[in-house]
Amino acid sequence: MFAGGADGGNGHLPRPRRARRGGGGGGGMGSPPLGPPPPPCTDYDMAYFKAYSHIGVHEEMLKDHVRTNTYRNAIMHHQDLISGKVVLDVGCGTGVLSIFCAFAGAARVYAVDASDIALQAMEIVRENELSDKVIVLHGRIEDVEIEEKVDVIISEWMGYMLLYESMLGSVIFARDKWLKPGGLILPSHASLYLAPITNSHRYQDSVYFWQDVYGIKMSSMMPLAKQCAFMEPSVETISGENVLTWPSVVAQVDCYTIQAPELETITATFNYTSMLQAPLHGFAFWFDVEFNGPVRQRSKKQANQCLDGNTQDASPSNKKKKADAPIVLSTAPEDAPTHWQQTLLYLFEPIELKKDQNIEGSVTISQSQQHARFLNICLKYFTRDQWYVKESVMK
Amino acid sequence: MFAGGADGGNGHLPRPRRARRGGGGGGGMGSPPLGPPPPPCTDYDMAYFKAYSHIGVHEEMLKDHVRTNTYRNAIMHHQDLISGKVVLDVGCGTGVLSIFCAFAGAARVYAVDASDIALQAMEIVRENELSDKVIVLHGRIEDVEIEEKVDVIISEWMGYMLLYESMLGSVIFARDKWLKPGGLILPSHASLYLAPITNSHRYQDSVYFWQDVYGIKMSSMMPLAKQCAFMEPSVETISGENVLTWPSVVAQVDCYTIQAPELETITATFNYTSMLQAPLHGFAFWFDVEFNGPVRQRSKKQANQCLDGNTQDASPSNKKKKADAPIVLSTAPEDAPTHWQQTLLYLFEPIELKKDQNIEGSVTISQSQQHARFLNICLKYFTRDQWYVKESVMK
Repeated sequence: MFAGGADGGNGHLPRPRRARRGGGGGGGMGSPPLGPPPPPCTDYDMAYFKAYSHIGVHEEMLKDHVRTNTYRNAIMHHQDLISGKVVLDVGCGTGVLSIFCAFAGAARVYAVDASDIALQAMEIVRENELSDKVIVLHGRIEDVEIEEKVDVIISEWMGYMLLYESMLGSVIFARDKWLKPGGLILPSHASLYLAPITNSHRYQDSVYFWQDVYGIKMSSMMPLAKQCAFMEPSVETISGENVLTWPSVVAQVDCYTIQAPELETITATFNYTSMLQAPLHGFAFWFDVEFNGPVRQRSKKQANQCLDGNTQDASPSNKKKKADAPIVLSTAPEDAPTHWQQTLLYLFEPIELKKDQNIEGSVTISQSQQHARFLNICLKYFTRDQWYVKESVMK
Repeated sequence: MFAGGADGGNGHLPRPRRARRGGGGGGGMGSPPLGPPPPPCTDYDMAYFKAYSHIGVHEEMLKDHVRTNTYRNAIMHHQDLISGKVVLDVGCGTGVLSIFCAFAGAARVYAVDASDIALQAMEIVRENELSDKVIVLHGRIEDVEIEEKVDVIISEWMGYMLLYESMLGSVIFARDKWLKPGGLILPSHASLYLAPITNSHRYQDSVYFWQDVYGIKMSSMMPLAKQCAFMEPSVETISGENVLTWPSVVAQVDCYTIQAPELETITATFNYTSMLQAPLHGFAFWFDVEFNGPVRQRSKKQANQCLDGNTQDASPSNKKKKADAPIVLSTAPEDAPTHWQQTLLYLFEPIELKKDQNIEGSVTISQSQQHARFLNICLKYFTRDQWYVKESVMK
């Protein structure tokens, strides 16, 4: 009976925010870094897989042209490493990436999804007369048997703010079990960013609105309005104009070397200097992923350094223009919007920032002990002689 | 964990589509037409009341300016019947209508809501220094005790397609228990309309999209896509340009005389003549409510005639311009959009209509036997020598 509002006729199944379209199992942040035994498949997993068989989710992802075109471009960019090779698509959904790989000349593609969408993927593969090349496996990556090691792993595993319900654990599992040494992983690297933002419009719309409603004073609603609007992280689209500084890097993931336990708790420090005078309304997370070849991979040591207390600012020069990032899928506010949008942490009270005012602090993202899929986010920041703490749960 | 997509930070409580913001109890279509004993308050009711205490629902309704301004206009229009009188607001929410009535000079307003939003309404009343005039009662209309009979009942009870989870049963209960003879009910009358529509854009977006997805044939998704998109009624906004004929009247409700059992099953016939050549993609429901005074009320007999097999077309002349409808809140496609939008029944296969082609048939809306809040909708239509049946459930 409860429905998430009008949904344009896409029915009433619960819709996962992102990720775990079925390729994953007990994957994500809590999955075992190495091979069997696989984690048990819970009712929760089953509900997820079912939800992802719901067509609307796939429609939304396919219609995200930034996402789908960037993957296609990346596949064509690495055609020399895909043509004639064996590919594994982790969480294949409708099979779009698998078919792109077949178009790029892959000898065989194993397309794995635990959701019932795999049954549709089989039909789509047949319709495109690729049944001899693309083998759809309906099951969890932890459970399926593949007859050979693979040269390439491709997966669109990213969740909101990169890590929320991400399928990265399943990719790690697949890599460790099925990828040949020196194989290609697409995407190869991922970065999570954080920046302070201003958004007076949002604050006006959600909070100050209550000051005068058709001539009626409703200021007494404001505390509740703030709670409802700003207690939890909010997935919404902002623009580059909302961002007050260059972002800091919260995490850098090297898909060739990352181990699942490294993702359980991530802490990063930041030190921002506001580029303008404006009210600070909160902080925004976004991410990008890069599609680098295996030759260009960074060392494990470098990746670990990035994950542990990284204070490096991501100015455009080191964020996008480096020579080893030919293809980037960005979900940044200044780039074209994607279905991932940005993830906002709003403050209950804005802070008036002056130009060049310093904001320093740290952010810790950790897997909830109560619920493995929830992310606890603890943001501590210091500005003009005062410390603030914003704790929230992404659920 | 499941979330209805990004929600702009309004948290993750389930959001009822409409109605039953707490004034109702076992109200709606299945409520008893006369006084006690009230129906039991189920867990389901409790969940509803809780959801409606969630601020986002009230924010959305208040920000529906068509809705709120029309109610305010209606109150001012009937100020002579409200000033110095006693008013009962059924399902008061934030108390906005109660306070409008106080502004219009009401001697006392009883504002009733079973949802926790009533606690907020108390604060708002206090903030506006109206505690001596507006008495907020936190409870179901079936349970609360009011110390006097009332001169006026006001309620914003309408659900999607008027009747879906509507709070009308609670208004009927309140009328029969608390309204003085000759009292005013706002709104006084409601009409539900149906019309054939064309919407190629929607069909393209949901169905034909799958024919070619980034150069991949996905036509095998189309049957599933149609199921997902068009199986259930869809709440969405169309424009007057989508509508192929004048609407027919499905039901007319006289709030002064209607009895709850009359709403359990509604059947109406229709006979449309398409005004243009276009594909018929489905049928749209919408409604309007009128704010007439008690003097102008129609007889019970007339109202019953309207509910039973009405074949009358609602041309503008009899829909809006009649002398006894000074204030109308319309949710028609040609009028300004409201949060009720329109409710669409899409066909799985479009029918090519010629100009002046006839479509006749009937629609039956009935309360589900399995679930009292669901509406079963059976649409039978005949055009160019063929009968069609579209059965759907509004859930």
